Amino acid sequence: MGPLLQNKDFPAALKGMSEAELEELAQEIRRELIETVSRNGGHLASNLGAVELTIALHRVFDSPKDRFVFDVGHQAYVHKLLTGRADRFATLRQKGGLSGFPSLRESEHDSFTAGHASTAISAALGLARARDLQGQDHHVVAVVGDGALTGGMCYEALNDAGHSGTRLIVVINDNEMSISRNVGAVSEHLTQLRQSASYLHAKSRLRAALERVPRALHFLERLRDSLKALLVGDRFFEALGFSYSGPINGHDIAALERALNVAKRSSRPVVLHVVTSKGHGYMPAEAHPDSYHGVAPYYAESNGSGGVSAGKAAVEHLAERALTNEKICMVGAAMPSGTGMDVFAKRFPKRAFDVGIAEEHAVESAAGMAAAGMRPYVAIYSTFLQRAYDQMLTDICLPRLPVTFLLDRAGLVGEDGATHQGVFDLTYLRSMPGMTVAAPSSIADLRRMLTLSETETAPMAIRYPKKLPEALPGEKEAGEFGVGQGRFLREGADVAIVAIGSAVSDALAAAEILEKRGIHAAVADARFAKPLDERLLRKAAAEDRPVLTVEENTALGGFGAAVLAFFSANGIGVRTAVAAVPDRFIPHATIAQQKSDLRLDAEGIAERAAKLIKKEANL
Amino acid sequence: MGPLLQNKDFPAALKGMSEAELEELAQEIRRELIETVSRNGGHLASNLGAVELTIALHRVFDSPKDRFVFDVGHQAYVHKLLTGRADRFATLRQKGGLSGFPSLRESEHDSFTAGHASTAISAALGLARARDLQGQDHHVVAVVGDGALTGGMCYEALNDAGHSGTRLIVVINDNEMSISRNVGAVSEHLTQLRQSASYLHAKSRLRAALERVPRALHFLERLRDSLKALLVGDRFFEALGFSYSGPINGHDIAALERALNVAKRSSRPVVLHVVTSKGHGYMPAEAHPDSYHGVAPYYAESNGSGGVSAGKAAVEHLAERALTNEKICMVGAAMPSGTGMDVFAKRFPKRAFDVGIAEEHAVESAAGMAAAGMRPYVAIYSTFLQRAYDQMLTDICLPRLPVTFLLDRAGLVGEDGATHQGVFDLTYLRSMPGMTVAAPSSIADLRRMLTLSETETAPMAIRYPKKLPEALPGEKEAGEFGVGQGRFLREGADVAIVAIGSAVSDALAAAEILEKRGIHAAVADARFAKPLDERLLRKAAAEDRPVLTVEENTALGGFGAAVLAFFSANGIGVRTAVAAVPDRFIPHATIAQQKSDLRLDAEGIAERAAKLIKKEANL
Repeated sequence: MGPLLQNKDFPAALKGMSEAELEELAQEIRRELIETVSRNGGHLASNLGAVELTIALHRVFDSPKDRFVFDVGHQAYVHKLLTGRADRFATLRQKGGLSGFPSLRESEHDSFTAGHASTAISAALGLARARDLQGQDHHVVAVVGDGALTGGMCYEALNDAGHSGTRLIVVINDNEMSISRNVGAVSEHLTQLRQSASYLHAKSRLRAALERVPRALHFLERLRDSLKALLVGDRFFEALGFSYSGPINGHDIAALERALNVAKRSSRPVVLHVVTSKGHGYMPAEAHPDSYHGVAPYYAESNGSGGVSAGKAAVEHLAERALTNEKICMVGAAMPSGTGMDVFAKRFPKRAFDVGIAEEHAVESAAGMAAAGMRPYVAIYSTFLQRAYDQMLTDICLPRLPVTFLLDRAGLVGEDGATHQGVFDLTYLRSMPGMTVAAPSSIADLRRMLTLSETETAPMAIRYPKKLPEALPGEKEAGEFGVGQGRFLREGADVAIVAIGSAVSDALAAAEILEKRGIHAAVADARFAKPLDERLLRKAAAEDRPVLTVEENTALGGFGAAVLAFFSANGIGVRTAVAAVPDRFIPHATIAQQKSDLRLDAEGIAERAAKLIKKEANL
Repeated sequence: MGPLLQNKDFPAALKGMSEAELEELAQEIRRELIETVSRNGGHLASNLGAVELTIALHRVFDSPKDRFVFDVGHQAYVHKLLTGRADRFATLRQKGGLSGFPSLRESEHDSFTAGHASTAISAALGLARARDLQGQDHHVVAVVGDGALTGGMCYEALNDAGHSGTRLIVVINDNEMSISRNVGAVSEHLTQLRQSASYLHAKSRLRAALERVPRALHFLERLRDSLKALLVGDRFFEALGFSYSGPINGHDIAALERALNVAKRSSRPVVLHVVTSKGHGYMPAEAHPDSYHGVAPYYAESNGSGGVSAGKAAVEHLAERALTNEKICMVGAAMPSGTGMDVFAKRFPKRAFDVGIAEEHAVESAAGMAAAGMRPYVAIYSTFLQRAYDQMLTDICLPRLPVTFLLDRAGLVGEDGATHQGVFDLTYLRSMPGMTVAAPSSIADLRRMLTLSETETAPMAIRYPKKLPEALPGEKEAGEFGVGQGRFLREGADVAIVAIGSAVSDALAAAEILEKRGIHAAVADARFAKPLDERLLRKAAAEDRPVLTVEENTALGGFGAAVLAFFSANGIGVRTAVAAVPDRFIPHATIAQQKSDLRLDAEGIAERAAKLIKKEANL
């Protein structure tokens, strides 16, 4: 770590630093970011772009008295480095270490817990309202990337904040790309602003021209007041009740400080439009070429336990099918490479709709397409699809529209931690009438499920982790199966382990462990959380064999809960245990560590199965 | 029904009608609306306001080839009357009759199933995209009330549609009020438009003035092009990529047709701003005063089985507490009278935040307030809170913020039907780590739960139907209880009925029925779906007494499922049955009819309990 960055008196000490020192500090920060992210994974480019902005924020404002809310939170690494966490920064995203996102519990400088997009303006407005009600006078600053502006909640918040007139500063960190490229008209609007570099000059020329027009025309007065609106885009933000200022060079600390100081004096809500470049300062690292080598300037993630990308496999399959099935189209929400949708978009650009960070609209527009005869596949991470719960239930399940949901990153997600776990989907999907809920244990099964989805007349969800094995160990070839049909993978008289999705591989490994201990475990792959394979479940429980269910989902209302309900409703009284994610949030660690901690790895499953048999024997 | 309205050839026959006939038809429609809604309940004012607009739509376009998507759908009664459903209109909102909302299954003229707000633009964009992909050329028209524009999904959709340039017509039905008054800057913006009645005149004067300015100033060219933007509000919609037209008198059929015909010829997305007045034509009904008498010009709802308004009682209690507890504040989403929040707002205007139809932002801003030390109470109908699933889970439960959710209209809701049932909340709330889930069986218990919520250090949800009894039959006085503490209301050795929330009254009545048949049923009020009262459940199952759980929630992952999981995990092997809402959507009918159909009324519960005992005896 650089010598300046070791200062224990940050953020206060930032205020006394010279321009030269600040420049050196920015370099040290970039070096630290690159070193740590190259080792631990995480968001690099967005943080490299936010170095000067974060320094300026901490020089102009007084954290923690003044409050910063970072949208998504992936761009808060610099903030962490400058608020007493530099010495622990090497533990970023590691078990027991710093979270990759701001967290109320991690530091008094983190004013809000973040992880998902488009929340900061709402949360900041809440902080501002609480401030006003409690007679305090500190500042509240939301920092929002332009990509998150495609999310409707930003607009709900801007609308409310603009109307209320509450004192609040919204910094739009316009870095020209969200997770992927920006989508939609708002992005184009900001692009136009960026291109109007000469707007100040233009404005003065225009003012001169208007001076010649008779004063009596009062409309011109209004017009001139609105010039800025036309030329620098406040027509958008000011229509919502904000005063607008910008664009400001987001890598010029002095310029940022000037603008922030003006905003600080406003008694109204202010939007500050800051233009940064993602990855700024990444290339000119001549002095330390080695430490830059191998850094993937993207969102690095844990790979789990090997296997191939399930999302990519799903999308490649869809693209093949789309050659003959012209009804197939895809809808995504700003994650084209993460979900693999870019593969489809390349081959069928007219049939791929990336709507930006706007999960509600993604799902709702897919409903419209399905209502008009298309077969939309909505590819969204499990955790982000939570945003569209109501649309799935009310606008797709109720009218039984044939939309297929591809939930990527389902189950435990590793280093992204608590805000990104995909461990609630089996519960909420199952509770929606008419929804088929599938979870493949292998790529081969995933392909078969996609084939089934093409002729389904009702909504279907297929949830999978980032990676799955191409086939299960010992599997010959992809079998045929219908909706609601699971399979037995292994026989064993002592206990039946009925697993679903990614847990099936672990269940098979657990059976091997048990076998070595002389316990014969059957293993079944349920494949569907809904409808249940009732024949398979009856077989599992036959001859009073105890049943252990295994899933990477919360125990509350998930697959195991479904099995318990089935057994209860049908008078099947075998001893049953549910191995699932417990009722608490699971923090960042590797997927393997998380599984081990939750006893959802092979060892843990084996141990639970053995215990179940023991209890059975004691009865 | 009026003679014109009996025409079987609508909507096609509308095109041949004279101006005078159309006026007469509009009168007949209003009469029909008033008669039916006064009898069946439903939305009156919004439909009275949409009469001419709907007639004009059907004259300019060809339904069902051309597609109309009505946002929320509560303003689609006129559309139903004009598309072959006039003869069944008297069955509106009744069991087996017409739905109060558009439904894909009800008519080929209903292009989409609606019920919740802010969905129409997204759905229409989906329909338009499907049209383009399938090489069709019909028109797609979304009709959106201005109130729904506070919902972020509208903005996500406008952004996407504007960017894509897809041919699509969005009619903003600006009736100056959403369900309650409009909130926020967008509403103010539309108000400004309405006030600029002289905008056309102003524009021409301004143009004349600008002619005098040297042509060389190319900025003025742009400026003039943008005049309309400044004066009639396209600065908002055009910034999003739409061409804007309006405001248009929404009660002038000829003017509407002219504007719709222009929009029809556009190859781009168009916003048509129509100004209507809610309840138009309601007062001048001199000819038929009787038929108007007693019509409540508001959203009439089933009253269920008597009792007092739970929402109002909750809010009155909060308002009392707010006198001494300055941390208490309220957040709502455009339902101030429905949720009772208006009572609080009147007494504490600075501590009440109605953010418009924007549930996501409502919840997120409450998170911000809680993070800064306030105690927000978020009052939203159960079905609408579904919009904020992710915010509740990720932004409130994860950081354990002390936000209390008041879920009104939980359980079966009666005539509003499938789109509005509040029967999923116990499932999704329970699955959120750290969420306390309470459901009072009486107003007395509701008050006690609110008292508990004041000192809770974690999120809490209290769900209740529209009405609850002040106290349960035979109840002496409000008891003290803590979080997770249920109670036995009645002893009985043969079976234990463990109910929650509104189902407790029915369970008590069921026990009376059983008693008459010689069956002694114990009845317990669980009060909390999470945490469970484990002592109470053990007592219920003591001495192998069979247990019947009862709830107005889906069986999948609800209270009964929680009890099954508890029994399974603790080796409690008593015969258990779950009485709950089955896994399908429940259509409109009275609440009593719905309960009876689902065997969740006293008779049904008694029958299930008796059957459970019989099965137990047979084992």
